[in-house]
Amino acid sequence: MSRFFSARYANLTPYTPGEQPQNRRYIKLNTNESPFPPSPGVAKAVEAESRKLELYSNPECVKLRAGMAEVYGLDPDQIVMGNGSDEVLNFAFMAFADEEHPLAFADITYGFYPVFAQVNRIPFTEIPLKEDFSLDPADYVGVHKTVVIANPNAPTGLYLPLEDIERIVKRNPDNVVIVDEAYVDFGGESAVTLLDRYENLLVVGTFSKSRSMAGARLGFGFGSKKLIADLNTLRYSTNPYNINRLTDAAGVAALEENGYYMDNCKIIIENRAWTTEQLRALGFCVLDSRTNFVFAESPQIGGKELYLKLKERGILVRHFDKDRLRNFNRITIGTKEQMQTLIETITEITEATKP
Amino acid sequence: MSRFFSARYANLTPYTPGEQPQNRRYIKLNTNESPFPPSPGVAKAVEAESRKLELYSNPECVKLRAGMAEVYGLDPDQIVMGNGSDEVLNFAFMAFADEEHPLAFADITYGFYPVFAQVNRIPFTEIPLKEDFSLDPADYVGVHKTVVIANPNAPTGLYLPLEDIERIVKRNPDNVVIVDEAYVDFGGESAVTLLDRYENLLVVGTFSKSRSMAGARLGFGFGSKKLIADLNTLRYSTNPYNINRLTDAAGVAALEENGYYMDNCKIIIENRAWTTEQLRALGFCVLDSRTNFVFAESPQIGGKELYLKLKERGILVRHFDKDRLRNFNRITIGTKEQMQTLIETITEITEATKP
Repeated sequence: MSRFFSARYANLTPYTPGEQPQNRRYIKLNTNESPFPPSPGVAKAVEAESRKLELYSNPECVKLRAGMAEVYGLDPDQIVMGNGSDEVLNFAFMAFADEEHPLAFADITYGFYPVFAQVNRIPFTEIPLKEDFSLDPADYVGVHKTVVIANPNAPTGLYLPLEDIERIVKRNPDNVVIVDEAYVDFGGESAVTLLDRYENLLVVGTFSKSRSMAGARLGFGFGSKKLIADLNTLRYSTNPYNINRLTDAAGVAALEENGYYMDNCKIIIENRAWTTEQLRALGFCVLDSRTNFVFAESPQIGGKELYLKLKERGILVRHFDKDRLRNFNRITIGTKEQMQTLIETITEITEATKP
Repeated sequence: MSRFFSARYANLTPYTPGEQPQNRRYIKLNTNESPFPPSPGVAKAVEAESRKLELYSNPECVKLRAGMAEVYGLDPDQIVMGNGSDEVLNFAFMAFADEEHPLAFADITYGFYPVFAQVNRIPFTEIPLKEDFSLDPADYVGVHKTVVIANPNAPTGLYLPLEDIERIVKRNPDNVVIVDEAYVDFGGESAVTLLDRYENLLVVGTFSKSRSMAGARLGFGFGSKKLIADLNTLRYSTNPYNINRLTDAAGVAALEENGYYMDNCKIIIENRAWTTEQLRALGFCVLDSRTNFVFAESPQIGGKELYLKLKERGILVRHFDKDRLRNFNRITIGTKEQMQTLIETITEITEATKP
């Protein structure tokens, strides 16, 4: 830290992204990326756009928001686009939480929430998940805080039914409830259908997972026109051109080929079922995932040890060195072939450690 | 504004970007874009990268920072990359200014500075430029504030010699001095050469202007390793993957063809000299620009009127409806042909208004 760094941020602990090794080719199952490339139209759109980079992007993302509006059945003014959903979440924390509206979220969820809270100096409460990692909606009903729920949750993969989300939204009428749906396309039901009934609901999503665009950085927020206008006030006060031309064009093209991505989600769901079954056959405890990853605990080998042994053998998974999570690994669902290699490798590792 | 919007931001006035009309083709001289497309390698690099969008970008931008380090003679750890220089500036304001270190910048300069200050709730002082729009370094020497200087300045185009910048940096040893060099490649001398002597200097730059990449959103900050580490603490606390794969690849390719861009700057400088001469011949007051635009006042027609009449005729320039600036227009320097059309059109307009 330099001697010039503001005392405001002196105690800030930044988020740690999953490792992105550059030195060796791994089967990369550690950052919940899609194993499928973007649809054919994306490369074409990006290539055309790359010849116009001397011109600023459209700060209103008119075409992209029109495409989103059509796919999601919304008005374009109910949509804000972000440089990844992280940016949208940060704007939402800024806009709808402060000393008067402290935050509440689960103790085990997306690790960025406490960081966004800290960087914006917003008080927050972490509400413990139950012993089985499920979220008890009763903990959030009438809590009088700005609530953030990842649904499905990460790293657990567990999903809260929409009626529970609705109860939480309904019973916190004076606070915004932010539902982070990064993984919703892998078997959840989006809260977007609740938007016309609740003015305090903000739904956040991303092109990173189901739409194979983690590298393009494209996220979005859905809400009432007024909530979206508030987020735009912050966007126009920090970075109006947050969406670059290439990503904008990639997003427009992806929406035109939405079927390709939804078909890929079905494959991931099948591969997830197969992987879950295989791991359970090996004695693993595997939570019921509605995401593109599984959260799994071996009966005989620690989470860190399994992570390290898989890494040695060219497979990257994610391990969280944190209470309650330490025995688990979060494993991204890839292609069937990748999952077969994973299961074979885990079988070898666990057989070698048998007493 | 929704009833949920934090009181923190209730009085925030967002930045207004220059208009980006979608309906009609204009000669666009209003947002200081380059009239030249990116170099050939950029489209190629972007096209190749577009097939890997399912993978996250490298949050450390290793290859891009290595390229920057080579071009600018720095260590990669002295460099941070941003989603446009606006993002770098916002991080710098957050990191190095607060209640204890209020901000000081000119009353006439980049309009985003007061917005960044407001969004981060940092007190600021606007120091008036002199009557001729020049900046008096004495106003900043020993001011004991976090100083921000756009050099060359916008919208005036005026340049402060490096020895004046050095004096300001030297005489504010307990505050960071941020030098925003968005336009430096058009005839200024970069303060990057001062970095090894001053730990309190941060230089900010962009690929938007001289490198024809406004639409790619790529900015940078140069400073001591400690200052850069502070900016990274904030980057990793808000948006670690701020640079998408496509922009990253475009940046790497552009640096490999740096000569192309520096040659374009020479053409812009020639066109600027020609345009300045022509406007002066028409009686305009034109400030001495070291940027890719000129700031010019007609002797016979108001700034707004000229802006509107040019727009009617298919040419967009930028008008600021603000005291001291109202009689001027900021005109981006484009190709020689565009400048010829501009001069012909202005000649027609001003002749028609002659008494």
